[in-house]
Amino acid sequence: MNGPLDPWFQRRGMTLLTDFYQLTMMAGQWREGRAHQRVTFDYFFRSLPPHTGFAICAGMESVLDFLENLRFEPDDIDYLRSLGTFDDDFLAYLKNFRLTCTVRAVPEGTLIFPDEPVLQVEGPIIEAQLLETALLNLLNYPILIATKAARVCLAAEGEPVLDFGLRRAHGPDGGVTGSRAAYIGGCLYTSNVLAGKVYGIPVAGTHAHSWVMSFPSELEAFRAFARQYPDRCILLVDTYDVVKSGVPNAIQVFKELAASGRSVRPAIRLDSGDLAKLSKAAYKMMTEAGLENPLIVASNDLNEDLIADLKRQGARINAWGVGTQLITSFDCPALGGVYKLTAIEGPSGWIPRMKISSNIEKATNPGRKQIIRYYDADNRPIGDLLIQEGSAWPEKGVIPGRSRKLPHLKAQLENAAMGMPLLQTVFADGRRLIEKTPTSAIRSRAIEQQRLLGEEFKRLRNPEIYRVILSEELGEIKARLLGGNPEIF
Amino acid sequence: MNGPLDPWFQRRGMTLLTDFYQLTMMAGQWREGRAHQRVTFDYFFRSLPPHTGFAICAGMESVLDFLENLRFEPDDIDYLRSLGTFDDDFLAYLKNFRLTCTVRAVPEGTLIFPDEPVLQVEGPIIEAQLLETALLNLLNYPILIATKAARVCLAAEGEPVLDFGLRRAHGPDGGVTGSRAAYIGGCLYTSNVLAGKVYGIPVAGTHAHSWVMSFPSELEAFRAFARQYPDRCILLVDTYDVVKSGVPNAIQVFKELAASGRSVRPAIRLDSGDLAKLSKAAYKMMTEAGLENPLIVASNDLNEDLIADLKRQGARINAWGVGTQLITSFDCPALGGVYKLTAIEGPSGWIPRMKISSNIEKATNPGRKQIIRYYDADNRPIGDLLIQEGSAWPEKGVIPGRSRKLPHLKAQLENAAMGMPLLQTVFADGRRLIEKTPTSAIRSRAIEQQRLLGEEFKRLRNPEIYRVILSEELGEIKARLLGGNPEIF
Repeated sequence: MNGPLDPWFQRRGMTLLTDFYQLTMMAGQWREGRAHQRVTFDYFFRSLPPHTGFAICAGMESVLDFLENLRFEPDDIDYLRSLGTFDDDFLAYLKNFRLTCTVRAVPEGTLIFPDEPVLQVEGPIIEAQLLETALLNLLNYPILIATKAARVCLAAEGEPVLDFGLRRAHGPDGGVTGSRAAYIGGCLYTSNVLAGKVYGIPVAGTHAHSWVMSFPSELEAFRAFARQYPDRCILLVDTYDVVKSGVPNAIQVFKELAASGRSVRPAIRLDSGDLAKLSKAAYKMMTEAGLENPLIVASNDLNEDLIADLKRQGARINAWGVGTQLITSFDCPALGGVYKLTAIEGPSGWIPRMKISSNIEKATNPGRKQIIRYYDADNRPIGDLLIQEGSAWPEKGVIPGRSRKLPHLKAQLENAAMGMPLLQTVFADGRRLIEKTPTSAIRSRAIEQQRLLGEEFKRLRNPEIYRVILSEELGEIKARLLGGNPEIF
Repeated sequence: MNGPLDPWFQRRGMTLLTDFYQLTMMAGQWREGRAHQRVTFDYFFRSLPPHTGFAICAGMESVLDFLENLRFEPDDIDYLRSLGTFDDDFLAYLKNFRLTCTVRAVPEGTLIFPDEPVLQVEGPIIEAQLLETALLNLLNYPILIATKAARVCLAAEGEPVLDFGLRRAHGPDGGVTGSRAAYIGGCLYTSNVLAGKVYGIPVAGTHAHSWVMSFPSELEAFRAFARQYPDRCILLVDTYDVVKSGVPNAIQVFKELAASGRSVRPAIRLDSGDLAKLSKAAYKMMTEAGLENPLIVASNDLNEDLIADLKRQGARINAWGVGTQLITSFDCPALGGVYKLTAIEGPSGWIPRMKISSNIEKATNPGRKQIIRYYDADNRPIGDLLIQEGSAWPEKGVIPGRSRKLPHLKAQLENAAMGMPLLQTVFADGRRLIEKTPTSAIRSRAIEQQRLLGEEFKRLRNPEIYRVILSEELGEIKARLLGGNPEIF
């Protein structure tokens, strides 16, 4: 579905989507004669949202579009000149700017964990610096929402989850990008038509209260809707009174449909009130009236906790419309992803760099790295090893390493049957190196990886912590760089 | 700054930014022969974010751009056809779709309160229905962020607040729209260069840890930055150790600048650790070293509560960089704005409509309305009166009315010196009727209105509730419509 529809998100004029200090630092590097110093930066996040045991990689397609279209247009240059901060020499450089960085990344739909380099940029510092803000902007949000959607779908235990979030998303991108991420995370449908068009996501919906209110009576409104959409008739029953009016009218209309010879699954939506009580009452009324196996869709500020609780109460709900809480990740609306310098190239090779900080938790993992994911004999992931890029890694068995937070301490993975590197080169010489992957295929990857992940990591509360350790070699480097600041231990 | 830069946000292809059910309802109305039924819808929100006493209207410029550019493009039609839900007759209607609705709205930058019709749409139901999702998407987020920014600025007590949120915003729009809203709410600068370009917002920034890490030493990095930006030199002092290294190195560089004859205000940024303690230590070290009146910028997950608390602790901070918590409105990342049918046109005039719900708090205010804001003799707002559109309103003195939640109860505003209607017609016959207002002028309006608002509404905790009452006439209508459901009282 991507070809001719790209322009919506492949906008020109995105190059200035950056923080001002990136440009002042670039100009500074330029004038100091340091612009071509080669460096690597990692994108990673230090922690998962509360109660969350894994995250899902998302947003890479937008990143690749952004990288491929990165040009300073004449009006960008004019604007920057108007600020009075930049000299003509630097502005001429920007005018001819072409990205020469190499970017490696984890494929979309892959499970990812804290402190892993989900994306790495390697190239001249003047370029790598420019990318920081846009990469953070384009990755933090989709990862957050794909991850939230996965939790909501876990709570729904295989029942369909519909993304209804567009109206509460943070602007059009928040909606369209969010709906894509929600689909990757496991939602089955979206209400968002533009996301359906741009990304090929199945769209679905029922009707609104206004449909009912625009007719002289609820019954007439239901009859009209059933007349128009006999085969996809889901009636919203809470405009006036669910039990006294909405459900009885819906029953009547579904009986009329049946009497007219239509074989239709009776379906209603509840959007307010006590969803547990009302769904049980509606189920009872409908089945007692002879309507079998009714579909009862619930919505109204749902999230994974409310869904789990409604299930615990025996609610008779079998499809879940989730909006605000999903599309904004309401209980944690930002993923704290960061982009940190990890190495600079010296005369005799790469020199690992680390931001130390007064808080050892915030010390970065230095150097150019690769992630090796290890699996057991059943193909279930058991833990990840961060190694220096280019180093060998143990094939199987006990994988020795170091704690990534306290790298002087030993750590290991056990019972490894196989290891696989996660980072692949996705962009070089100004061009993307991987084919576009259909969104549905990314979603399938995410679902399959979740299926193979142990239940203990998928708990909605207090999940087990997935192991991410450093190789012995990387651990030594980190311990050495930390060594100059012994008091932080 | 708006002219040639509009294309970024005046995108084509936004028409499908809607929920699927809007289109199925439209097709249903069309085939039922009810498409031209004239109706009115209100956009309003039922409650403010926690602890918040007022909101700021924002987002209307995007709404007007959206309305002016609303067309179903051929590829939109093709996509809709591919869904198999819509017949050719309806698709032909969409192909020639032109908006004939009239839209009235409160000007951007105006203070707004719960249950007020911030925007009203009047026109054929088939058009008014289509607009719902996009209007909610385009208004909820900017209002939320302008309001959050106002709170952050209140906490900063007049000291500059810088929007640093782009990297944690929900996508590019989240960033650019959010930065605009943050500026309207009171921020003085943004780090977001694209928002600076598109909306003429002043941009600012310092430098990142990577600047320091890319040099052999912190001192060399500071010297290079001071060499490049002697007149806007703010040094980030927490890459290694604030007290042992960052501040001493900054002091040395500012002394060198002074020795070279530059008259520069010494300035540092703190981005981690105990900001109260570190800012006091840095202030002491800098002033004892003879650097007078240092500018100390703080950042690191700040919000209005942390700023107020840092001030209480006597932190020596005089400028505030606020990112994640502002741009996502972290503690409440969605405004629950809704769009509800309020009246339908009958053979002998408009008939008020109301969604009743089992919760009287969620009952809507029926009818076509106007908001009258009353001011005291000092031009301070004292409360708002919702009236039927076209009805007269009392000029001054005691303004009688009804409770908007319990409309059988009397309510009133006192000591009114003057009343002013807030809703103006902004769009009709397919065209915007108001000139574009520069963003800086919208910001000035918001700041002036906040200045005139009583302190009791601006408290960061437990603000006084601003009065919004119904006219006697509107109260009677609402009470009568509620009357059929006496049990909800």
